[in-house]
Amino acid sequence: MTAPDRVLPAALAYSTENCTIGRAMAILGERWTFVVLREVFNGVRRFDDMARHAGIPRQVLSNRLAMLVEEGILRKEPYRPSGERVRHEYRLTRKGFDLYPVLLAVSRWGDTYLADPEGPPVELEHRGCGARVGLRMSCDAGHDIDELREVATRPGPGVRLLE
Amino acid sequence: MTAPDRVLPAALAYSTENCTIGRAMAILGERWTFVVLREVFNGVRRFDDMARHAGIPRQVLSNRLAMLVEEGILRKEPYRPSGERVRHEYRLTRKGFDLYPVLLAVSRWGDTYLADPEGPPVELEHRGCGARVGLRMSCDAGHDIDELREVATRPGPGVRLLE
Repeated sequence: MTAPDRVLPAALAYSTENCTIGRAMAILGERWTFVVLREVFNGVRRFDDMARHAGIPRQVLSNRLAMLVEEGILRKEPYRPSGERVRHEYRLTRKGFDLYPVLLAVSRWGDTYLADPEGPPVELEHRGCGARVGLRMSCDAGHDIDELREVATRPGPGVRLLE
Repeated sequence: MTAPDRVLPAALAYSTENCTIGRAMAILGERWTFVVLREVFNGVRRFDDMARHAGIPRQVLSNRLAMLVEEGILRKEPYRPSGERVRHEYRLTRKGFDLYPVLLAVSRWGDTYLADPEGPPVELEHRGCGARVGLRMSCDAGHDIDELREVATRPGPGVRLLE
């Protein structure tokens, strides 16, 4: 079923059953959309791979992929396994790539509060340096922000005042 | 219905109908849980205020609040409006405060892709400095990370290999 030149994504070797993103989103919302995005960010781009690796029911996966394509977060790219009909894999658009901080924030929170006692199943490291990757709050003027009380909410250009 | 010493949260003056967090989560998952968290982060802590301000159906709000308390993300704090029975408001625990980067990441993505033409309804500014607040990827060794290709996935301590 696989094209001869295919390199399997490393993520396919790991169980997703203790994934902290999945656990976080089971609390925060609807887990499957984030699980699909996690697979694609991990290089798992094909329907059968996603369904099997992440244990997503096929109908749910089909719905979520169609919705993510519709929303412009994923795009379909054709490929043809040797001797088979053309199939499609799913790739991130710019809008999809820009969701990376959301996934990263969800995964760090999940790692802190929802991991198994031995720790999270996957870590993100700074290539070359080896230190763990995370997010820092900062402002567009370049200042680091350490405390929530340094953040103020202001009405934006689209604010609508209530009567 | 309000206690005499009560200061109304500023957020109550603004419509939530074009909130980009709500729009993002309608795509990414289940919107109401994030909407409840947004209200609490904005200082809207009381059941009736949240229901009215965010337009959350009361039964849904009741379910989401109970779940967030159960998960240790919110805690109930009693207060007594003058001449009335004791009521409760909802406050963030440490685990809840630590969700701030998730909300911030969701809101910045929503602001970029889902805002009305005139812009997002709310912006977060660095108090004193006035610049907009966002998130930067960085590693625990203190390096800024600008490109996704600088991030590598490695098995964590809890990894489970598949056969």
